[in-house]
Amino acid sequence: MKNISLLGATGSIGIQTLDVIAQHPELFRLTAISFGKNVEKGMEIIEKFKPRIIAVQDKKDADDLRLRLGDQSLVYYGQEGLIEAAVAREAHILVNAVMGSVGLVPTINAIQAGKDIAIANKETLVTAGHIIMELAEKHNVSLLPVDSEHSAIFQCLNGENAQQVDRLILTASGGSFRDYTREQLADVTVDEALNHPNWSMGAKITIDSATMMNKGLEVIEAHWLFNMPYSKIDVILHKESIIHSMVEYKDGSTLAHLGNPDMRVPIQYALTYPDRLEHTPSKRLNLWEIGKLHFKKMDMERFRCLKLAYLAGEKGGTMTTALNAANEAAVGLFLERKISFLAIEEYIEKALEHHEFIEQPTLEEIQAIDTHTRQYVQSLLN
Amino acid sequence: MKNISLLGATGSIGIQTLDVIAQHPELFRLTAISFGKNVEKGMEIIEKFKPRIIAVQDKKDADDLRLRLGDQSLVYYGQEGLIEAAVAREAHILVNAVMGSVGLVPTINAIQAGKDIAIANKETLVTAGHIIMELAEKHNVSLLPVDSEHSAIFQCLNGENAQQVDRLILTASGGSFRDYTREQLADVTVDEALNHPNWSMGAKITIDSATMMNKGLEVIEAHWLFNMPYSKIDVILHKESIIHSMVEYKDGSTLAHLGNPDMRVPIQYALTYPDRLEHTPSKRLNLWEIGKLHFKKMDMERFRCLKLAYLAGEKGGTMTTALNAANEAAVGLFLERKISFLAIEEYIEKALEHHEFIEQPTLEEIQAIDTHTRQYVQSLLN
Repeated sequence: MKNISLLGATGSIGIQTLDVIAQHPELFRLTAISFGKNVEKGMEIIEKFKPRIIAVQDKKDADDLRLRLGDQSLVYYGQEGLIEAAVAREAHILVNAVMGSVGLVPTINAIQAGKDIAIANKETLVTAGHIIMELAEKHNVSLLPVDSEHSAIFQCLNGENAQQVDRLILTASGGSFRDYTREQLADVTVDEALNHPNWSMGAKITIDSATMMNKGLEVIEAHWLFNMPYSKIDVILHKESIIHSMVEYKDGSTLAHLGNPDMRVPIQYALTYPDRLEHTPSKRLNLWEIGKLHFKKMDMERFRCLKLAYLAGEKGGTMTTALNAANEAAVGLFLERKISFLAIEEYIEKALEHHEFIEQPTLEEIQAIDTHTRQYVQSLLN
Repeated sequence: MKNISLLGATGSIGIQTLDVIAQHPELFRLTAISFGKNVEKGMEIIEKFKPRIIAVQDKKDADDLRLRLGDQSLVYYGQEGLIEAAVAREAHILVNAVMGSVGLVPTINAIQAGKDIAIANKETLVTAGHIIMELAEKHNVSLLPVDSEHSAIFQCLNGENAQQVDRLILTASGGSFRDYTREQLADVTVDEALNHPNWSMGAKITIDSATMMNKGLEVIEAHWLFNMPYSKIDVILHKESIIHSMVEYKDGSTLAHLGNPDMRVPIQYALTYPDRLEHTPSKRLNLWEIGKLHFKKMDMERFRCLKLAYLAGEKGGTMTTALNAANEAAVGLFLERKISFLAIEEYIEKALEHHEFIEQPTLEEIQAIDTHTRQYVQSLLN
């Protein structure tokens, strides 16, 4: 029996994680959850899985839940709540599926408590990769990717010698505006941006897909997870999203992971690694039904956010912290309809130039840069 | 240093094996070779690699070589020659790249002598899979696939639990006539059949690609190499031959091996497994240059030889021996322009029906069935 802490239970990855847990009650038990403000959905989960620890965002909701649940569960809130859920003593693994850099501190605590981490919160590695990787090594915990791209790479590395890898190749669907020119991007609306061609996700990650920053964050995450220099990480446009990513070896062999898009596959793999459990995705892959797979070279000028991510990654230090914070702030402003789509990349670029670079930042310095960068992006509005 | 015996040195796989050996003189030494009648090419190889043991097909060529080489090498001929080369005492691995069922007995001898086998001679497993696999297990030797399809599957199984495989998917280019209807096949010539769209190989295997019997033999080989029932081995048409084959796991993950067609990649992998050596294929894979990969469902009525191979495989015993012998004989007749292209499958079907089935044949029974089947196919001419 594997005991699971799940941060971000009511989000898209959270719900699908619960689906995997429910499919295998003989193997998995949900011991702790966090969610934000969706108490109704949260209560459904609590009733079904009866986690011992519950963390919510606000004190008011926590007080309310304590009244409703009595002795059944321990209820916490805020950052402390996230940490309590992340380090639940009986948990073997933390599934970190919260959005944004709020996932960082609970992950650090869970690693220090010796929990393996199934990492769906890419901002954790983007913003503080060197701290996380060093801690994970020190505490001998596994970082298991949940993103379909990183899970694909992780699976293509199975049984292989990492020294013999030549290149990681991440595939990118291209997002909502993959066929738009830069001129056409000037006038796109929030609603158009939220209409992803391949799947339905949260608003922030859907915008990140449209700007290609999502792929940029994935490149940085891959750098840390797989200890690979940026010069050996490529991105290719593949609109069908059937090939989830690839690893090219120095003998000229390329291994790829394929499947119909279904996040439960990588989630389950992170929970069962190195084993594979029966899972019947909504639809098995039949390449002859799909007929054709398309590939295009990534255009870094067209997708400037990806270029910014590579530049920030190459420079390292707090550059990726600033990149991530600026992106979260700028996407927030776009979703609030306060700035245009193309202003997202402009604001990020300004924030990268503006921020005071630190080569080997401490956690406190990272948090300060994160806060300052968000404030700076807000200030650009005026 | 790995000492290598190479049967079939002057053939297409043989030459490419020598290329791999020559690229890594610090790792590989050629200790024994066989070739058929191409003494000129054979002498080039002998001068370059100085193998201790040489086997040729005919006594006359052997006598001639003995005169020319003096004490430099031991020269043998015929079946005994193949065996001497296969069991060369200092050899660690036998690369079996001869064509046809003549590869069987030397392989058995090499396994009994404890040599690992890099197997490019698919007829060995097709004709006597149960004997080979049992012997390999008994003598604890590895069977390492050299065919690009089987090497692809072997690589996709790396680090995985074979119990968790759902399906092997072999890709097929479709051969010279992939876009022809059965009606159009009636009048095709030998020259048209020898014009393979993707690569240049020996005549027999090029015809086998056009009839799809090559894929049928590969299905049977995969059955034995990977201990997989035929119901879990699929074939898909993929005209670019970029995906070399795939493994679908029960969690819905599919792993695939990709690359530009270059037989030196799987050959080298068989020699270096589980390691990968630097190899710069003529051209690295760039999917965006290729742009599109195409897939089509395999039509078993269109490609009747593949259907016959599945039927023979499912029935087992001597059926696959008869299938292989009949195919070799019928392709020979086609290449001699004595029968039509579609007569190949007719002759094979007749031979399968005609032969006296044995469920668990001995080696002698296999050899007898092989001989009788060839004679029977010849007799159909009259």
